[in-house]
Amino acid sequence: MTATDGRVTQSAGARDTAHQAPTAHKVYVTEGREDISVPFRAVHLTPTEGTDSSPVLLYDTSGPGADPHTGLPPLRLPWILARGNVEAVAARPFSARDNGRAAQARANTAAAAQEVPSESQAGPVLGVGRPVLRARSEGRATQLHYARRGETTPEMEFVAVREGVDPEVVRRAVAAGRAIIPANMNHPESEPMIIGRDFLVKVNANIGNSAVTSSVEEEVEKLTWAVRWGADTVMDLSTGADIHTTREWILRNAPTPIGTVPLYQALEKTNGSPEELTWELYRDTLIEQAEQGVDYFTVHAGVRLQYVPLTVNRVTGIVSRGGSIMAAWCLAHHKENFLYTHFAEICEIMAAYDVSFSLGDGLRPGCIADANDAAQFGELETLGELTKIAWQHDVQVMIEGPGHVPMHKIKENVDLQDKLCHSAPFYTLGPLTTDVAPGYDHITSAIGAAMIGMWGTAMLCYVTPKEHLGLPNKEDVKQGMIAYKIAAHAADLAKGHAGAQVWDDALSRARFEFRWEDQFNLSIDPETARAYHDASLPASAAKTAHFCSMCGPKFCSMKITQDVRAYANAHGVADEEALELGMQEKAGEFVAAGNEVFLPVDKLQARR
Amino acid sequence: MTATDGRVTQSAGARDTAHQAPTAHKVYVTEGREDISVPFRAVHLTPTEGTDSSPVLLYDTSGPGADPHTGLPPLRLPWILARGNVEAVAARPFSARDNGRAAQARANTAAAAQEVPSESQAGPVLGVGRPVLRARSEGRATQLHYARRGETTPEMEFVAVREGVDPEVVRRAVAAGRAIIPANMNHPESEPMIIGRDFLVKVNANIGNSAVTSSVEEEVEKLTWAVRWGADTVMDLSTGADIHTTREWILRNAPTPIGTVPLYQALEKTNGSPEELTWELYRDTLIEQAEQGVDYFTVHAGVRLQYVPLTVNRVTGIVSRGGSIMAAWCLAHHKENFLYTHFAEICEIMAAYDVSFSLGDGLRPGCIADANDAAQFGELETLGELTKIAWQHDVQVMIEGPGHVPMHKIKENVDLQDKLCHSAPFYTLGPLTTDVAPGYDHITSAIGAAMIGMWGTAMLCYVTPKEHLGLPNKEDVKQGMIAYKIAAHAADLAKGHAGAQVWDDALSRARFEFRWEDQFNLSIDPETARAYHDASLPASAAKTAHFCSMCGPKFCSMKITQDVRAYANAHGVADEEALELGMQEKAGEFVAAGNEVFLPVDKLQARR
Repeated sequence: MTATDGRVTQSAGARDTAHQAPTAHKVYVTEGREDISVPFRAVHLTPTEGTDSSPVLLYDTSGPGADPHTGLPPLRLPWILARGNVEAVAARPFSARDNGRAAQARANTAAAAQEVPSESQAGPVLGVGRPVLRARSEGRATQLHYARRGETTPEMEFVAVREGVDPEVVRRAVAAGRAIIPANMNHPESEPMIIGRDFLVKVNANIGNSAVTSSVEEEVEKLTWAVRWGADTVMDLSTGADIHTTREWILRNAPTPIGTVPLYQALEKTNGSPEELTWELYRDTLIEQAEQGVDYFTVHAGVRLQYVPLTVNRVTGIVSRGGSIMAAWCLAHHKENFLYTHFAEICEIMAAYDVSFSLGDGLRPGCIADANDAAQFGELETLGELTKIAWQHDVQVMIEGPGHVPMHKIKENVDLQDKLCHSAPFYTLGPLTTDVAPGYDHITSAIGAAMIGMWGTAMLCYVTPKEHLGLPNKEDVKQGMIAYKIAAHAADLAKGHAGAQVWDDALSRARFEFRWEDQFNLSIDPETARAYHDASLPASAAKTAHFCSMCGPKFCSMKITQDVRAYANAHGVADEEALELGMQEKAGEFVAAGNEVFLPVDKLQARR
Repeated sequence: MTATDGRVTQSAGARDTAHQAPTAHKVYVTEGREDISVPFRAVHLTPTEGTDSSPVLLYDTSGPGADPHTGLPPLRLPWILARGNVEAVAARPFSARDNGRAAQARANTAAAAQEVPSESQAGPVLGVGRPVLRARSEGRATQLHYARRGETTPEMEFVAVREGVDPEVVRRAVAAGRAIIPANMNHPESEPMIIGRDFLVKVNANIGNSAVTSSVEEEVEKLTWAVRWGADTVMDLSTGADIHTTREWILRNAPTPIGTVPLYQALEKTNGSPEELTWELYRDTLIEQAEQGVDYFTVHAGVRLQYVPLTVNRVTGIVSRGGSIMAAWCLAHHKENFLYTHFAEICEIMAAYDVSFSLGDGLRPGCIADANDAAQFGELETLGELTKIAWQHDVQVMIEGPGHVPMHKIKENVDLQDKLCHSAPFYTLGPLTTDVAPGYDHITSAIGAAMIGMWGTAMLCYVTPKEHLGLPNKEDVKQGMIAYKIAAHAADLAKGHAGAQVWDDALSRARFEFRWEDQFNLSIDPETARAYHDASLPASAAKTAHFCSMCGPKFCSMKITQDVRAYANAHGVADEEALELGMQEKAGEFVAAGNEVFLPVDKLQARR
């Protein structure tokens, strides 16, 4: 992924900061408005005669670098306040229950013993003093609202530079609901990004604790790690202890939009009993999270009572946590899903903070056998109806998709989603293209993700090697991210996204010209590429050698081709006339020149 | 991949031998002819009430287990001799030069010093005493010849059991050239397999030494490792020392067909100088390798002189080793490629031993920018012409394909190959769908491989994580094989291959029913699946728990679905009437029953 033309288009305002690789730096590009500086990773190339050696600019999600204890600067705050339609409000009071059962139990004990509550029991520790913002009464302070009014926000301009398109292209896509810019006004730390089929394919990484052993600091570290490997958004799926405080730390340190499934926290508040969930409890949780700054909510409002029986004869039933919780609630109360019946009220809350919908696919297929069935597509139809309602409230919407789908059934998912959901962005988990490879589901699903991305899916939710088996650790997060950045970039190439191929061409030119260091630095994972090369040819001399360990000097096809090209160029072989006349004469000249083409090869052999 | 119906269809003749996992065994299935026993990997399932617990039969390439020093039994020899149209001939005399420059140098030194030559200098040590076979003069002892005569060979019957189809389906596909059974009469150790678009998608693994440090024993170990992970064929791409002897050891221990690029050995004999290559030298090498038993030859006969200038303006020129060698030869001699001008003579040699063609794509694209260009498709057209000539000689043919291709250009490759090459099987390297991920090219290419397989490619040549960076080690071979077995199986599912989904369904049922051990044993890599699970929940009690570490007991969606299903089944919710009437009444009964559905969840919580 690259800027407009893969080069720094305006160096004015660019400032360099140290980056992990010595030959790549973060640069900021300013175009149009002076108060907008868009980050890119600039990869510097070895100066080569006759070749453009300008740095290659790559899309950069890593942010300015988090210090967990102070958080990131509130980049967007001036833009938000300048719009003049928001107001500071009294924050919803924090309660120990917001941090889950363990915190509640600790608080009760502390109260009984008159102890001083610990920091995590006391709630938020970051962003203190910054007021909670929301739209003025009856207001709708969403990017969709502004776009529809014809207003190009700074967020849209930022996104336009990032994507290398005109700001008006961004505004129109948002106004039409074809794209969203998840940007809660209470998460001013985020660098704006866009999710839509006309833009670069994005990747989401899931993090979140589910055991008491995972500390708050660890989750911030996972966040920083995920964005370092290119996560465009991050979902905090915590279900364990200190759920409110964990989320606060993540938000204050997140340069990307953050998504959540509020149902998980609501269920924590009922001590894990789905049947005790109520609209009031859920509503309170929505406000709690919206005030913290969550940028998008997964809402399983499409799991309607009538669809539940359609899952009974499936091979793997309901595999979505949210879906199964709501199915259980529906059955327990013999009532329609309260997320469906209260959907308009949910929209009003989300419009007030500009939280985007990620309409959850609670009935997604959990295996190849269940793909594209009546339950899945029934829910999708409902999500399409809900999209229209959300849009009536100026709330941005994307639609979640499967799951497990064999390759020949993937395109139907995209096409049906586009039709039923009126071209709202599609956001899919994989899909996994076979069930038989637990331990390798980052690969089974990268295949499906690349394909569904090519056909129009806007964002891919990553799958790690631990899927179906356990919680991902840091290495799993990296492996999942890399597999999905590959899938997303392959999809960008297939969609012909302007500028996407600049990256591939730069790396392939470096490969052909034996600029090994450039090849490593342009790689999706420079450290690994360098380490694999050095395992066979560790000598630093090999980094400049015109061959590699695969073929050795004698067989190197690229070297031979270079010699052929040099000969052809010197003798005009490639011109139109020569092509028409055939190679006879030119080849004759070549032989007369004494097989010069192979001399460099012989020289290399002599080195052995 | 499974047998006809995923079950042992005839247990008569089945014999069990120890396999690596205690709950999986190799079984042999006999159908039709009593002298044909086809291997499968039988995965045993935990007996479960109300469920079919018969073992699941998976396609098995691992062979009877190699002992490098004795080789495998000559399984096919009786079938070959019984056909009565082959004769024993005097083997081509072995020369030290056959083992490459190092051996030649050693031999010269030994002769000068009157030393006794070492074992590796002395040539073949296995298969001694077994005569070299070839067709009687003017004969054509190929599977294509037999198929066209209407003869169903034991090889075809073996394949039919493996694929779960009627033998006549196999014979017709071979007769039409739509499929090949690579089966050199001098490699009787191989278990017959078929490559064609109507059959299971196959995977080839490349091995071979290129440095003096890689010993003969190491190459046999890599072979055994590759077939243990499912390699359907193995190519020996050795270019280093002891090239003849290495190949001899590989062939005598290979339960799969073995392919080579004879040009590599021919170049060794010219001391690495392409311009010194001659037809006579190449012809002698073909006979040498055909007598040893190589099952298919990559022949770069499509790199015609006229195509070479078309590569000059490419980003990465010619990236095939064979292609660049022949391009260099063409330019050096201002002559047409001798593999092209002598093609009919090559066919005569290959017909006499039943060596199949793998017509090489010497001009395949080496980067995204060069995909589907005039050089590539020009060569493909020539390969189509050569296919017809080979078929006139009753020689079996498959066609090699790219390379690096963005996703939206993949289908054109398959469709054009099918048309230009008259439906001869396609055999592709990947393709890689982006250039930017060296170190992860098993993933970039598994995406392309799965797609090109879905659209009709018959065999996929694996790519390891070391592609572009170095020679693969054992772990790289495993990672490459697993990525490609995933791609091939995903393609089988998408093609609707009979029986392919039996494997997925068996694993998903085990997953849904929390039969953890069955899930592990059915996995493509049981050890890794088990290890990943145990990293989070090592206690053996967790193997029978009705939840996993991802969600914990409270959130387990599969558990909730099971409860919903149990309730629904007990109350007839899923019948047609209930679906029409809606859930109201049934849900009422459910509530009256007192939320029984959640009791098991509560019980699990109590265990925490």
